Order: sequence, then structure tokens, then C-alpha cells
Amino acid sequence: MIGIFDSGIGGLTVVSAIMDTLPGYDITYFGDTARTPYGTKSFETVINYALENTEFLLSKGADIIVMACNTASSVATEHLSKKYAVPIFEVITPAVELAVKTSKKKRIGIIGTRATINSGVYEKKIKAMSPDSSVYSNPCPLIVPLVEEGWLKNRETAMIVKKYIYPLKLKQIDTLILGCTHYPVIRNVISRKIGKRVNIIDSSVAVAERIKNFFENQPNMNLGKNGIAHFFVSDITEQFKKTAKVILKRDIDLKHVKI
Amino acid sequence: MIGIFDSGIGGLTVVSAIMDTLPGYDITYFGDTARTPYGTKSFETVINYALENTEFLLSKGADIIVMACNTASSVATEHLSKKYAVPIFEVITPAVELAVKTSKKKRIGIIGTRATINSGVYEKKIKAMSPDSSVYSNPCPLIVPLVEEGWLKNRETAMIVKKYIYPLKLKQIDTLILGCTHYPVIRNVISRKIGKRVNIIDSSVAVAERIKNFFENQPNMNLGKNGIAHFFVSDITEQFKKTAKVILKRDIDLKHVKI
Repeated sequence: MIGIFDSGIGGLTVVSAIMDTLPGYDITYFGDTARTPYGTKSFETVINYALENTEFLLSKGADIIVMACNTASSVATEHLSKKYAVPIFEVITPAVELAVKTSKKKRIGIIGTRATINSGVYEKKIKAMSPDSSVYSNPCPLIVPLVEEGWLKNRETAMIVKKYIYPLKLKQIDTLILGCTHYPVIRNVISRKIGKRVNIIDSSVAVAERIKNFFENQPNMNLGKNGIAHFFVSDITEQFKKTAKVILKRDIDLKHVKI
Repeated sequence: MIGIFDSGIGGLTVVSAIMDTLPGYDITYFGDTARTPYGTKSFETVINYALENTEFLLSKGADIIVMACNTASSVATEHLSKKYAVPIFEVITPAVELAVKTSKKKRIGIIGTRATINSGVYEKKIKAMSPDSSVYSNPCPLIVPLVEEGWLKNRETAMIVKKYIYPLKLKQIDTLILGCTHYPVIRNVISRKIGKRVNIIDSSVAVAERIKNFFENQPNMNLGKNGIAHFFVSDITEQFKKTAKVILKRDIDLKHVKI
């Protein structure tokens, strides 16, 4: 079974991409809604949370772990890979590979939470793969609460996105990585503000492709394909249910667990 | 010693009011920055957090507990009062008493987090004290992240506040309770949007007055008055330090504890 965790509800964009790319695979999702958000918190705290979330998914029988959270991916990947024998997938490397492959001007922008941008992990990975690329980033901490509130089409959201995006527009990037799993939900707003000619990289799609490739190269990994999906959250409210429905475009049964 | 807790940094507005009203009293503050915010989470989760925070403050020697968080005050007061022998102060009753006393038109508005407004506690308390009052409320979930980001004078903040305040303005309230400890930080923005003639009730000032009265009536309670103040947080980042400085208008030493 594919185990997926996120700081909250936003990681359902990754679930959605995995369901599209790997239809029928059994999935268990854990959203840490009791401690959300991660992006404003320290590396140490996020690492502890990522370890606890992984333990939970393993206890449910996960064969692989997908961190559907850029903040956790930025700061906890090494810790998880060292500690656990199962394959660990993060959302950063697949997005970086896709960005490097498709950027013609080699001017790549990244938006994410403060913790993700401060970690510098995107810049490091891009420079390692493509040393002559120019990399520009800007933290966008208010986008997560705006999306969680469902303010997807509000004028205020568009204004705040514009403010965040403007410094990257000035740098004339040709590729923009959405470095947070919440951002694909307002992809059209972001695209309008950065300009239609800028290629937008959605890490949820990139990681789903990567997992598909992994399975193709590991024919011995026989994961369940009964189309079973379980969704666990550490806290449950009407707002979380509403946002989950908006992202997955269908009703799901969120189960409350204490971890 | 006075023990004070909040979901994060916002409760420092209460510390500031207590320091002004009760100068010299020893204070220990705990901000649950690792699990902030509370206002978007379920009652059950907030109650559990409030119990844990109280245990921490008692272990540090608190003689009284002040919940400097409206969300916790809304849903956890009874649980805490039943479980602990020390006096428990919450930020709601003092604000309600002041509002009822000063409102001439008996049209009272309340803004707060979604959990606070959904609890209905303000409305219940106002109606109990003044049955013929009209009470109007609106949840303002995005104000906390805006304040935590330090967006105090941004145009977007003013627009979002206006959107939240407008339905209350239509109701022609003459008194507005700031039902969240973050809101006094942008009191001037709120005042401009609701109209200068509306009387604004700041629960941090109201609770400080209440504690002062309590001490005057309990001459046997000899709390330490050495001007010692300790500030603990469950997570620490540069942004938390910056916001703390903005609220307390001075540098403080935030100590990181795991709870």
C-alpha cells in the first residue's frame, strides 16, 4: 500500500495526481491537521512530526512512504531515509528534474512556505543538476491559509499572489516550481500573475510520475491494487472536510486518529 | 507566579496588559507555537492542548492560570476549572461584562476565530447578562496569519478586515469585542473599518483588570513580585521572535521547550 502524509489537507493534490497516474493502487493518507501548518515552524519540529507521521503509516502497513508536503520534504528526507528501510519519496527532486529538463532560458523560480524556501533545498538541487541555471525564490506564507479558507477566487487572494510573484516576474523566469502542495489549487491565479508563457511545474504530478517509473523498474514490488483509499487526519473540522472535497472533487470519509 | 498560555505569540498582548496593570508581578508565559493556530481546530483537540499547557505551567509553579487565547477560553474553561484547584482566568467573561456595561444601543458585535465564533460562548454570556441585547458575530480566520506575518499596515490586510467587518457594520453595532488576542495588534485598522464611533473592547485589557480585582479581594494570595518574566514556546523561529518583539515592543528571550 502507498502511504502518503502531509501537514494537513493540501497533500490531497498529490493523492489526486497518484490516483490519476497509478489508478487502482491502494492508498493510505495521513493529514496532520492537529498541528498544521508546518511551513511556519522550525526544522527540528517538522522533522519530529515527519518521523511520527511515518511511524503511523508504517503501522497501517505502508510499503512506500510519500511525503506530500514540501516543507517536510525539504527538511526531513535524509532523516527518514536513514531511519526506515522502505522507499521514501519526496516532492522536491521530481519537480527539480522536470524544471531543469524543460527550462530553456535556465531561469527558474520557486515559491513555497518560509521553511521550504529557507532550507535552500531547491536551489541546491537545481544547481547540482544544472550549475549555470539562475534560481530565484520567494516565500509565500499566506497562500496556505488562503487555500485552507477556500478563498480561491477572491480578489484579495489574487492581490496577495501578485505581491509574492512580482519579484520573480522581474527576474524574467521561464519556469516556476509550485513548491507547496497547496499551490496547485490556485494554479490558474498564479499562472495569470506570473504570465501565461511561464511554464508551471506542479510537484504533485512530478512525484506521481516518479513513483510510476519506480514501480516499472521494481516488478517484484507487488502493492495492493484494490482501489482502496483510507484518509486519516489528526484533527477534524467542517472546514477541513470542505477543503478536502474542493481538492479531491468528491466526498471522502476522513477518519480521526490521535497520534 | 502568574501562568499564562496561548496558542502562539498573540497572547503576548495579554502579557503586555498584565504588565501594565499589575507591574512587578512574576509571570511565566507559554506559547504553543509548535501546534499553532488553535482557531481552525476542533474543540476536542483544543481542550487537549489546553490541559497539556496548564500542566506545563503548574509544573513551573503557577499559582493562577490565565488562558490568553479566546479559542481555548471558549471551549476549555470548564474542563480546566473542574480539573485544577488553582484559579483559572479566561479572556471572555471580562470582555463581555465590559461590553454589556458600556453598550448604549445594546447592539454588540464579536469577531474571533472560527472555533471561538462556532462555540457561541460570547452570545450565550451576553444574553445571560443582558437578555435584550442583540448580538452579531463573524469569524475572521485570516487575521491571525496576517498578524503572525507582520502584515499590519498592508493594503491587503485592510481589505480583508473590511470584508470581515462589513456585515457587522450593516447591523449598526455600537460595541465590538475583539474576540482573539491577535486582534489588538491591528486595532487601528479594525477601528477604521467599523467606524470610529464604535467602542472597541480589548479582552486583554479586560482580563488584566479582572485579575487585579481578584488580587485585591484575595489579600492572602501572595504572588511573587520580583518582576521576573519567563517566556516559553514549543517551537522557535525567527518569525516568532520578530512577531513577539512587535507585540511586546521589546526584545525577549524565548525559551524552547518540548511538551
